[in-house]
Amino acid sequence: SQIMAGVEGTTGVGVDQELISSVPISNPTFVARNFTDAEIAYCSTQPSSAASFAARWVGKEAVFKSLGVSSKGAGAAMKDIEILPDETGAPTVALHGEAKAAADAKGITKVHISLSHSETTAIAFAQATSS
Amino acid sequence: SQIMAGVEGTTGVGVDQELISSVPISNPTFVARNFTDAEIAYCSTQPSSAASFAARWVGKEAVFKSLGVSSKGAGAAMKDIEILPDETGAPTVALHGEAKAAADAKGITKVHISLSHSETTAIAFAQATSS
Amino acid sequence: SQIMAGVEGTTGVGVDQELISSVPISNPTFVARNFTDAEIAYCSTQPSSAASFAARWVGKEAVFKSLGVSSKGAGAAMKDIEILPDETGAPTVALHGEAKAAADAKGITKVHISLSHSETTAIAFAQATSS
Repeated sequence: SQIMAGVEGTTGVGVDQELISSVPISNPTFVARNFTDAEIAYCSTQPSSAASFAARWVGKEAVFKSLGVSSKGAGAAMKDIEILPDETGAPTVALHGEAKAAADAKGITKVHISLSHSETTAIAFAQATSS
Repeated sequence: SQIMAGVEGTTGVGVDQELISSVPISNPTFVARNFTDAEIAYCSTQPSSAASFAARWVGKEAVFKSLGVSSKGAGAAMKDIEILPDETGAPTVALHGEAKAAADAKGITKVHISLSHSETTAIAFAQATSS
Repeated sequence: SQIMAGVEGTTGVGVDQELISSVPISNPTFVARNFTDAEIAYCSTQPSSAASFAARWVGKEAVFKSLGVSSKGAGAAMKDIEILPDETGAPTVALHGEAKAAADAKGITKVHISLSHSETTAIAFAQATSS
């Protein structure tokens, strides 16, 4: 018998980008529906709140793509995909609710994420992996 | 003896982007040389054909980079890299001809792909893996 | 006993982008501090030096993110992350100094990289892996 601990495989990847100006973060309904309290608290204290919210928004889209589940349109619960900094400041993904259930069903144990924004554009890359 | 089924490793990654306006999709020769019939049929029915063709075009470039083979210049057979939606709508890569031969020679068994476009820019990420 | 040769797992990913015009490559201090002699020699002979330097610059940032170490601000030794073409022309990462020490401490054995630039924007993706 053997335990193949640490063996990891990619199950899907996701990339997404948006013009920062096109993410409706001045709309409180959009923000409340799509971001967790912890995300809102974090983004609100960043030098550029708009860029932080936009980067996280495209991050959620990239994670969603990496999970490889069918899109549910505007009703997708992006709040179930939470992206917060770890102790080094690097963004990390926590899944909740239906997003977690979908990941569990596919054996996805971790989603790696990276975010970036220029003056105008936010971009994110996600990689879903199983172990 | 053991079988390490499911063990997967990354052999290469690829990223590519283009301004949608700079991809010559109104040139029928460019389209016919670089896209398969199934790709043309799919893109032609999308809300924005131009964005769909452009995203697929940068997708082919990203896949080509992920394969880690020498560039052959303008003569590269991008038609051998086919990107079509699966049953969930997610883009998937099928390799044909020389692209498939190159992948086989390197032990590449799957290429993950994700595509995105904003109003102006198409971007793609690819990850080639062996099992 | 067994040897799990070739088993590889992702330890982190990184994405970065910049407007090519915002990378201060006409500043010789910036170039000398952040690029190795081999990188400078390579970029200087490319059709667009500015785009080559900018793509490499965002590549270094993407690699840094993929390593998952704490940011050290403007003092980070980006020169320790060297990106040069291999024999096929594909960009490859070599780590030196503190970047190498940080990677070794995390068991990172290879960092995959891909670079791209449009007329205006340079983008890079990096994936750090352990074996």
